[in-house]
Amino acid sequence: MAVATALASRGRGRTAPNPNVGCVIVQDGRVIGRGWTQPGGRPHAEAMALDQAGEAARGATAYVTLEPCAHQSLRGPACADLLAEAGVARVVAALRDPDPRTDGEGFARLRAHGLTVDVGTGAEEARRAMAGFLTRRAFGRPHVTLKLGLSLDGKIALANGSSRWITGAPARAHAHLERARADAILVGRGTFAADAPKLDVRLRGLEERAPRRFILASTKPQIEETGWSWLPAPNLIGKLVGVDHLLIEGGAGVAASFLRDDLVDRLLLYRAPIVIGGDGLPGIGDLGIGALLDTHGRWALHDARMLGMDRLEVYERRRKG
Amino acid sequence: MAVATALASRGRGRTAPNPNVGCVIVQDGRVIGRGWTQPGGRPHAEAMALDQAGEAARGATAYVTLEPCAHQSLRGPACADLLAEAGVARVVAALRDPDPRTDGEGFARLRAHGLTVDVGTGAEEARRAMAGFLTRRAFGRPHVTLKLGLSLDGKIALANGSSRWITGAPARAHAHLERARADAILVGRGTFAADAPKLDVRLRGLEERAPRRFILASTKPQIEETGWSWLPAPNLIGKLVGVDHLLIEGGAGVAASFLRDDLVDRLLLYRAPIVIGGDGLPGIGDLGIGALLDTHGRWALHDARMLGMDRLEVYERRRKG
Repeated sequence: MAVATALASRGRGRTAPNPNVGCVIVQDGRVIGRGWTQPGGRPHAEAMALDQAGEAARGATAYVTLEPCAHQSLRGPACADLLAEAGVARVVAALRDPDPRTDGEGFARLRAHGLTVDVGTGAEEARRAMAGFLTRRAFGRPHVTLKLGLSLDGKIALANGSSRWITGAPARAHAHLERARADAILVGRGTFAADAPKLDVRLRGLEERAPRRFILASTKPQIEETGWSWLPAPNLIGKLVGVDHLLIEGGAGVAASFLRDDLVDRLLLYRAPIVIGGDGLPGIGDLGIGALLDTHGRWALHDARMLGMDRLEVYERRRKG
Repeated sequence: MAVATALASRGRGRTAPNPNVGCVIVQDGRVIGRGWTQPGGRPHAEAMALDQAGEAARGATAYVTLEPCAHQSLRGPACADLLAEAGVARVVAALRDPDPRTDGEGFARLRAHGLTVDVGTGAEEARRAMAGFLTRRAFGRPHVTLKLGLSLDGKIALANGSSRWITGAPARAHAHLERARADAILVGRGTFAADAPKLDVRLRGLEERAPRRFILASTKPQIEETGWSWLPAPNLIGKLVGVDHLLIEGGAGVAASFLRDDLVDRLLLYRAPIVIGGDGLPGIGDLGIGALLDTHGRWALHDARMLGMDRLEVYERRRKG
């Protein structure tokens, strides 16, 4: 399932509104097919993996990150039927598909065809890999990552506004990779004015993966012919069609407005081993929190590692549902 | 040497102005004596370990964190002579003693007695364990640790001043242990007014280890009969007799004044998984840094680990000498 989850991640940021699924078909301990949802959402992961496996799929086990779909569409047959027709004997799925057109129907159809079905293996990692799709299904909005490049004392710039550079090259390269994995990025008016030309993907081989770009501004900004779009308020992100993974790149006011509305699902902290002091600019604007108790229990550390001299920390918002 | 260094740490905060040395005597792969500098500075680690080893020391190897002393004093003979008299065959020392009364003389005397001497094993860890003594020798002042209990965005309190609690019980217990390992703690006037009664050591068995207590204030504070002493300026810490390990406990102004004078050797960051926002109080006051380049290359991460829900990070100032 770990392999299927890794394959699922390949489609991240390119399959919305479809889920980015990963699929591995195994026969006698040998991988005979690998698939992941292709850009635009088709072919599905299962179809791609079955195509690779061919006749060898007979009697094999398919590992999928999400319940195979039960609905035919103009663009292809239902994956549950495809798996059965290919003779697959067993399907192991990490998660049930919340899409009402499937939502248990995929499993039921597999079982009706005589396949063995197991659900739940590797669910946590699969949930992370398909966070955009699942957040859209659960909350009707994209999965939101807030990225901050901080000093040890939480500053994003000196008092004079200088922020080049807080973090080193390895951390900045990682941030570009995160950008390539998002459907869209969003900045505030100030960050747009200062950094707009630089908000692309500068990793060899991934130049094409530049996400769509939005400015958060209460009044319409001057963005004709810039390739940028306007978002008037954080709570309108649910209306961004084809955006299931949104990356917030700054500045402090944008960060604060999304945090105030509890619309941040993931904190991506790049922390440089430097101290800037209280006269530096904070990474997050005013939140107006009245009691410390209200701040606890929201965030859990998911990952921490070194990127050159800097430290990456990923915190996830703990939510029900 | 790791064992000797661990023993050295036992004396930390109780031996100034003497170094807190650790010593292990090994014969045929078996530990036959363990010693560490006792409170007040005597007996020395070597004397204690030799006392335990007795006759078995003949032909043994002694591991010491610091060069054995070459100077007799009214309080005891030179350790180099003691080791030779006991018949120890080999001495492995992590560090040379910068004390001008020894400074290579200890090794010379051991070699003159016919012992084999090796220097440098485990030097980095030994340097950490005896940081107070070594900083005093190198810079004429105590080794300074700045402790901060922070939110992820570097705040020590809400806008309304509330700071109870940012971190959880395990992090606070660890901070008490750090307090027990210091010769003295120092706070600013505001922290004194708010927290003075609480700045003791609340760990079972370590209640006696409460360090001496100082207030940093430009004018003399009202501290009669409080057990606190006055320090008018950061650059006077060198004058604090018997203080080789100083722990700064707050607030933001004190932290900033020590950082501005480059008098902080170690950052002890307890980071809670909470976000407070720009209206919270910063952990460090204004530093007036004019260029980001000046902030880089100063701090290196030495340790990072979880303490309950919180994360401890220890950064060390990179210095020459």
